[in-house]
Amino acid sequence: MAVALYFIRRSLFHDWMTHIHRAALLAILSASPVLAADPPATPAALVAQAPGEAWRAVPPDDLLVMTIEGGAQVVIQLAPMFSPRHVGNIRVLAQAHWWDGTSINRVQDNYVVQWGDATEKKPMPPGLSATSPDDYRLPIATRRLQVTPSPYPDPYAPATGFVGGWPVAMDGDAAWLPHCYGFVGVGRNLSPDAGTGAELYAVIGQAPRQLDRNIAVVGRVIAGMAHLSSLPRGSGELGFYTPQEHPVPILSVRLASDMPAAQRPQFQQMDTGSRSFADYLRLRANRKDDFYDRPAGGVDLCNAPVPVRPAP
Amino acid sequence: MAVALYFIRRSLFHDWMTHIHRAALLAILSASPVLAADPPATPAALVAQAPGEAWRAVPPDDLLVMTIEGGAQVVIQLAPMFSPRHVGNIRVLAQAHWWDGTSINRVQDNYVVQWGDATEKKPMPPGLSATSPDDYRLPIATRRLQVTPSPYPDPYAPATGFVGGWPVAMDGDAAWLPHCYGFVGVGRNLSPDAGTGAELYAVIGQAPRQLDRNIAVVGRVIAGMAHLSSLPRGSGELGFYTPQEHPVPILSVRLASDMPAAQRPQFQQMDTGSRSFADYLRLRANRKDDFYDRPAGGVDLCNAPVPVRPAP
Repeated sequence: MAVALYFIRRSLFHDWMTHIHRAALLAILSASPVLAADPPATPAALVAQAPGEAWRAVPPDDLLVMTIEGGAQVVIQLAPMFSPRHVGNIRVLAQAHWWDGTSINRVQDNYVVQWGDATEKKPMPPGLSATSPDDYRLPIATRRLQVTPSPYPDPYAPATGFVGGWPVAMDGDAAWLPHCYGFVGVGRNLSPDAGTGAELYAVIGQAPRQLDRNIAVVGRVIAGMAHLSSLPRGSGELGFYTPQEHPVPILSVRLASDMPAAQRPQFQQMDTGSRSFADYLRLRANRKDDFYDRPAGGVDLCNAPVPVRPAP
Repeated sequence: MAVALYFIRRSLFHDWMTHIHRAALLAILSASPVLAADPPATPAALVAQAPGEAWRAVPPDDLLVMTIEGGAQVVIQLAPMFSPRHVGNIRVLAQAHWWDGTSINRVQDNYVVQWGDATEKKPMPPGLSATSPDDYRLPIATRRLQVTPSPYPDPYAPATGFVGGWPVAMDGDAAWLPHCYGFVGVGRNLSPDAGTGAELYAVIGQAPRQLDRNIAVVGRVIAGMAHLSSLPRGSGELGFYTPQEHPVPILSVRLASDMPAAQRPQFQQMDTGSRSFADYLRLRANRKDDFYDRPAGGVDLCNAPVPVRPAP
């Protein structure tokens, strides 16, 4: 009996591999060039087979490495194209070692994990830029954005697509980053305050897209996400930890570009303008393989995460 | 300084309350009947103020109470209207105490928590019904469904709405339950196997809607979700726990209707045909209050969870 990819039973994993090998053997025996050229059937297979030219290195000053209690690391890719002032501030804060000794102090289920200075009294380093709600949207006309459009409808925006390795929602004038799972935004007080970048959160549930264009999105977690998403939920208002609960100490936050070369994490992301990415998006929207009988014919903007991998 | 609802700083919570009180005072002083009749500005306020007639009791044989290691309880509301055979099997399994002594053995980040018999050798109780992929969709014509349509576009289905307290996706012929955060589905082997209902999973991330119509959705977690979503992720294939990791023992799974009256959890859900729910959906799609400046004008089917509350 062959077994499903996603709901595979552990003890039958071997049987499933046998199934795959049998299919490969059949393909070889049939010796058909059409079969041999068959494209990958699943998004995972496509990503595994994507050629080197489909990948782009993530610059080391776009990588923020947060080390928390116990030494676990969370790696965040920053998005300076979309939030230049906030990302500039985050780099200043990291270089000042400002987050060292702060904590993760809010975990609200199906919403966000949030971190920063719980005392709200830590002095800010010099060199931070002023921010405003104008920073939440990137005007399309002034930047001549190269957009790979998505053909699938979106409940939150007239159009969506991908720009420079990032998913975007768009109207006629501007593009903005969506609040997808793992995306990182900037806590703020009431508008027109737009936050400095010192108080950050990561999405840990269904994409809260109602926050789009109401708050600055500055990046996404690309490694170590489970260290955030599996934290105990806070029992206080809005998921803040109460005095009886344990905020998670942040040991350090550094830009990869400031780390010794040997310790620097190195990642690549798929070029969202590549043929591989177009194929990936189509496969995410049309699952039809051993496990899937009925392809949806569409996919949510937040359910086609841009593939990322450690640099080979 | 007034402070944001969702990204409130803990130490400033008092200031925010002051702000609310000031607004209430102004409304009273202005003594305007229009102001006094102003509808609630947020979904949470609307739910808190919804009249008793907007709520429906959840039948006790639709409530499944899972007690795990340490005594934590997870309450699942079953959906017999949509998955009658699978829900029937789940009731048989609960009444046979079949899950007692099994375990949560798979936790895959941004995907699912899965539980059942890791040995795959536990004999099934008598009385289970056969299931098939036909069970994934509910024909609309034969059931005369009362649908409250949603006006917002969906990437996965031609139409969406709400039926009998549940979100649904639809085509011209049938309705089906979506894979939203906290929704519970039935693990299976390769099609045409459709699973018995003995192996279950709950969604813990962005809605994996590609599974819709490919697998049976049988209900949703309505209490204790954080006991599942905050579990350590498994490091094995597909998030299965490895032999070095700790599956979470399941102490018991019972229908509320089989529990002593004093221990029975009692819940109500909002009537999705009510005026209150229509207002709730509109507010979820158009956040415009102290915190939100730019309403989206739409909301994802999985981002407007049907309100549920303990019976007052």
